[in-house]
Amino acid sequence: MFEVFESGSKISKSDYKKRLPELRAELLKTQFQLQKENIPVLIKVAGVEGAGKGDVVNRLNSWMDTRHIETYVFRKESDEEANRPFYWRYWRVLPSGGQIGVFFGSWYTKPIQRLVFEETSAAKFDAEMSHIRSLEQMLVAGGMVIVKFWLHIPEKEQRKRFENLEKDDRTKWRVTDYDWRYHNNFDRFLKVSKRAIRQTDTSDSPWNIIDASQQRYRDIAFMEILLQQMKAALNRNGVNKKLSDPLTPKLHETARPNNILNHVNLLPALSNNEYKKIYSELSLEIEYMAWQCYQNQISNVIVFEGWDAAGKGGIIRRLVPALDAKLYRVIQISAPTKLEKSHHYLWRFWQDIPKDGKITIYDRSWYGRVLVERVEGFASEPEWSRSYHEINEFEQQLIEHGTIVNKFWLHISSEEQLSRFEERKQIEYKKHKLTEEDWRNREKRDDYKSAVHDMIAKTSTEYAPWNIIPANSKNYARIRVLEIIRDSMKKALEKKNKKVSGS
Amino acid sequence: MFEVFESGSKISKSDYKKRLPELRAELLKTQFQLQKENIPVLIKVAGVEGAGKGDVVNRLNSWMDTRHIETYVFRKESDEEANRPFYWRYWRVLPSGGQIGVFFGSWYTKPIQRLVFEETSAAKFDAEMSHIRSLEQMLVAGGMVIVKFWLHIPEKEQRKRFENLEKDDRTKWRVTDYDWRYHNNFDRFLKVSKRAIRQTDTSDSPWNIIDASQQRYRDIAFMEILLQQMKAALNRNGVNKKLSDPLTPKLHETARPNNILNHVNLLPALSNNEYKKIYSELSLEIEYMAWQCYQNQISNVIVFEGWDAAGKGGIIRRLVPALDAKLYRVIQISAPTKLEKSHHYLWRFWQDIPKDGKITIYDRSWYGRVLVERVEGFASEPEWSRSYHEINEFEQQLIEHGTIVNKFWLHISSEEQLSRFEERKQIEYKKHKLTEEDWRNREKRDDYKSAVHDMIAKTSTEYAPWNIIPANSKNYARIRVLEIIRDSMKKALEKKNKKVSGS
Repeated sequence: MFEVFESGSKISKSDYKKRLPELRAELLKTQFQLQKENIPVLIKVAGVEGAGKGDVVNRLNSWMDTRHIETYVFRKESDEEANRPFYWRYWRVLPSGGQIGVFFGSWYTKPIQRLVFEETSAAKFDAEMSHIRSLEQMLVAGGMVIVKFWLHIPEKEQRKRFENLEKDDRTKWRVTDYDWRYHNNFDRFLKVSKRAIRQTDTSDSPWNIIDASQQRYRDIAFMEILLQQMKAALNRNGVNKKLSDPLTPKLHETARPNNILNHVNLLPALSNNEYKKIYSELSLEIEYMAWQCYQNQISNVIVFEGWDAAGKGGIIRRLVPALDAKLYRVIQISAPTKLEKSHHYLWRFWQDIPKDGKITIYDRSWYGRVLVERVEGFASEPEWSRSYHEINEFEQQLIEHGTIVNKFWLHISSEEQLSRFEERKQIEYKKHKLTEEDWRNREKRDDYKSAVHDMIAKTSTEYAPWNIIPANSKNYARIRVLEIIRDSMKKALEKKNKKVSGS
Repeated sequence: MFEVFESGSKISKSDYKKRLPELRAELLKTQFQLQKENIPVLIKVAGVEGAGKGDVVNRLNSWMDTRHIETYVFRKESDEEANRPFYWRYWRVLPSGGQIGVFFGSWYTKPIQRLVFEETSAAKFDAEMSHIRSLEQMLVAGGMVIVKFWLHIPEKEQRKRFENLEKDDRTKWRVTDYDWRYHNNFDRFLKVSKRAIRQTDTSDSPWNIIDASQQRYRDIAFMEILLQQMKAALNRNGVNKKLSDPLTPKLHETARPNNILNHVNLLPALSNNEYKKIYSELSLEIEYMAWQCYQNQISNVIVFEGWDAAGKGGIIRRLVPALDAKLYRVIQISAPTKLEKSHHYLWRFWQDIPKDGKITIYDRSWYGRVLVERVEGFASEPEWSRSYHEINEFEQQLIEHGTIVNKFWLHISSEEQLSRFEERKQIEYKKHKLTEEDWRNREKRDDYKSAVHDMIAKTSTEYAPWNIIPANSKNYARIRVLEIIRDSMKKALEKKNKKVSGS
């Protein structure tokens, strides 16, 4: 695989000088076109230490319109980053539409290092590569262009370069201990890198391996490949636009499954007295648990979805007094902003992922993709239908990091909703909560109901099942939700303590 | 996930009777259209034991045009199957264009059972699911429609059905020990099935879970979903046809890497005397090794690719006399037949995968996809560019099964090729070997050279690297190839013996 790139690809000075001006002009032109079409570009620069990754990136920055290009170097994780799922640091800085993001070392670096130094198993490494493949596929399906470069130099060349740098006091500092550690494990690095490249070399986002022995060739090859793949993205974009028609005919009504919501028992209720008694007890417990979670670095993600007027806000207002204000954030999700729209739809949710020990409460969430965006046609069918899988992967990453994920669907009957709407109309201080949109949504209740059914079917995973909460009785719903939150914290704490005492 | 399908979906007798005739007519019509468009359909029927998978499949067969539908039940592997890589039994019976294949139990069954009964680890299970996802993606990308059904019934319903069957002597036999074993592990089966479904529920080939408690609903839902997804495939097919233009602009010549073939030292040669001496020794060794491999159930796949007139045939003629005729087969690959064309391009190569202990020699191979089909435009760019990954996955499956894979590129210079062509023209008994096509290919040597370079770069994996053989000297090439084959057998035998004596 790499041997092929050790055959000394060269460009003469004159060819270099001839090609350079055209290439720069073409690159700039293509950058502007991508910007006009609002396509995000992610350039990943990886490869052998000493191959000149930094030089190439510097050159790239000097050639492009720097207002729309941003470079990120991912070295050791900051505390901020280590306290969140592995991919968080990458998600937060993904390029938006029209922007170019250059990732210098990225989600490949750590798994490769860990396998080289035997801090992980081959099976876990492969699982990580499979995650990466899914992630890249998801980003590309969402419209991003990913151009992946691997700069290669042979072992001998690496040694020569390090030694030359060390000879001169002014460049000595550039050769680190890690560089020599890399050199001493050169073969192992190549072997593991091969394994990574093989597993993530897809036609969606192929690897481009470049012979980086000669600087001129390295730079020109880098730019030519980048240009070619950006142009290809422009071509594809035109084609994709043609594909917006729904491809799947509607399912005949006879085959629709009996909607799960038809079977929710909406009778459970609690009197005010019962409610008050249980609530004051429960909120004390939750307060205690939340602190325990904080101490134990266990974070919480709590998602509220439900019919309009089902009482999401009311529950959240009962939940947060039990929590220390430093520990939680409530994120209210409404229509995406222009910036958010120019990203993969999951991007904005990654931003607010809680740090270890903290709690993020989502008033509506990423499930909007398969609810409102599906029903209202804001997302095309291929878009929302692949979201189920994407959401499951996303939540799996939260869980694997040790986050507790609770998802609630607050269910009320159509009649109950109507009477709550009417009530809001009457009461002055509730009037603002009722909008035209609420009435329009109500008319589409059947479509929403199908979407909810599918959502629950497709995203009730073994690690993050949905909780369907009968919410005709506000008292009952509030207590039920708080109980589930308490129980899940309790379980997570017990598990953690068992692990600690067991080890 | 499954809970949603326990809500008792039902269809009334009258609705059933009303919908049935239309549905049958539509299904048949759609089957004919798919046949006309030469689209292969794979229907997978999985689910809880006792949910009525067999009944549904029988019904399906009675409704469709049975000339173009074939059902396969995958129970315990036959010896034939156990002696080959896991997926072989499935590949060999995949439906061709216009055909419907019904798979009853399939690549999901075994991994699920193994995890339920703790015969495998969760990590290995996940790796298997990742293979399955790749395989299904590959088949769908190749034009196949995959419709996956999961029939679900609740635990109680399962017990009731088994008990009812057992009450009657005429149906008693239908409940097996395995069925009860399943029942006793019901929860674990559901949990593992969820894990499988979650990981393989892609928008390319989504799972359809059906509430199978009521027979009428089960059948109608099955047929409706099948109809809907077959229609969607017809729609997509129309769209895909529009996408045949190349999407990737050509890479500018300056960025082309120095071709690996430029660096092959073609000087090595052997005199006839040397050759004879080494050959007689080598062929004895190979004969012995091949028998040892047979005894140890190690199979061999040997792939020959190379320039026209590079001497593939000559080497094979030197190799096979060393082998017992019962042990090997030589497969000559030329243009695919009509049947082969209507399958995924890898299909025909799966057919001849050797049984454990045997040897298959491929005179040209699956690499035609990224050589002749790429250069001549028989495969579109998206098609051949995704093949590298597909080929790597394919060879990985061979390796993981314990097969030795040797790949040879026989390299001769352009001058040497010309002189061999001229020689063939002169000599009466060699004339037939030189065709018009050889001359045409020769004119495209540069394009082929780029394709060879990319092939070696992309498919020289850590487990199956390419061997580039300098073949200007026929004697040298023959010896070199035989040596590599001998050494790889030797290595594999040593490894196997070490394992046996070590365990």
